[in-house]
Amino acid sequence: MTTTDTPVDNGVNVAALLEAREALTAAPEAAQFQWRANCVWEHGTHSRSTIERFFGLGGEQQHKTTFSFDADHPEIFASEDHGATPVEIVLVGLASCLTAGVAAVAQNREIQLRSVSATLEGDMDIQGILGIDSDVRNGFSGIKVTYDIDADASADEIKAIVAQSQKRSAVYDIITNPTNVTVEVR
Amino acid sequence: MTTTDTPVDNGVNVAALLEAREALTAAPEAAQFQWRANCVWEHGTHSRSTIERFFGLGGEQQHKTTFSFDADHPEIFASEDHGATPVEIVLVGLASCLTAGVAAVAQNREIQLRSVSATLEGDMDIQGILGIDSDVRNGFSGIKVTYDIDADASADEIKAIVAQSQKRSAVYDIITNPTNVTVEVR
Repeated sequence: MTTTDTPVDNGVNVAALLEAREALTAAPEAAQFQWRANCVWEHGTHSRSTIERFFGLGGEQQHKTTFSFDADHPEIFASEDHGATPVEIVLVGLASCLTAGVAAVAQNREIQLRSVSATLEGDMDIQGILGIDSDVRNGFSGIKVTYDIDADASADEIKAIVAQSQKRSAVYDIITNPTNVTVEVR
Repeated sequence: MTTTDTPVDNGVNVAALLEAREALTAAPEAAQFQWRANCVWEHGTHSRSTIERFFGLGGEQQHKTTFSFDADHPEIFASEDHGATPVEIVLVGLASCLTAGVAAVAQNREIQLRSVSATLEGDMDIQGILGIDSDVRNGFSGIKVTYDIDADASADEIKAIVAQSQKRSAVYDIITNPTNVTVEVR
């Protein structure tokens, strides 16, 4: 650990987040968000999804640019591997949610991060999706996330940052708890 | 609807999938997969995740290329919007999983698809992630998926394809049912 007079800066504007928290406490209707994705089938198991608009703070919002994602199945599933598999993309969502939280919590606790990386492993028995054994679930049997973090903090402080990120993570909640999904055909 | 002598081709090799199903029924240990992601914190809420290797069919496997994903928070959260938000990335995982399933099921039922697109909407009260109201969950309150499908099939046949895709979807299962996630710091 080094002592420094430089203010802690992980690049997260905690003051703005605390202001937003105060503003939304006073106006909870502005806290109602809708996140969206559009997906177009390309060929075989290959699709392309785009992320552009969302609703929040009482109005329509737009990202600076449109984000595009190719998804596919790998060659060992007789597919063309034009993109990550959908379940790998879910791991990316979890990894990025927890990691953004680590940066925000560390900033709020005035702890300087130097490097943060995470390895995610999701185990799956594909007898589920192949319909071989109806007792096997389609999704992951479990996910393990392992963080390597270098920061101006003790091992216990680092563990506490990760625990707090987990507690406030949207994607951690989505994966660990049931969410209702309705699927309709227009 | 048109009648044609051209064989149905949605680009999914169903014969190979049925062979795999037979092979894995005989050798269930080969059905044990592990999907992986690596995530590196960049700055603020911005991270970059990569997908490269996975384990399955009894050995280490590798994608043809490394897939890379930037994630960030939008400007209205005082962030720099260098990528989609983690929860939008989860919607991409769900969209691409269900869409690959639609193509595979249609192929298996010998129904020619012409176009498939999906719109996903995930509602979220961000009072949860901001810690304003502990009764509000961090994740989506619900997700709605709406398909527009043009195919050589009746409306009922199209609905049945989507329902079967849902039934076998790994990501639909991950989101609608609880999955255990352990988070450790090395």
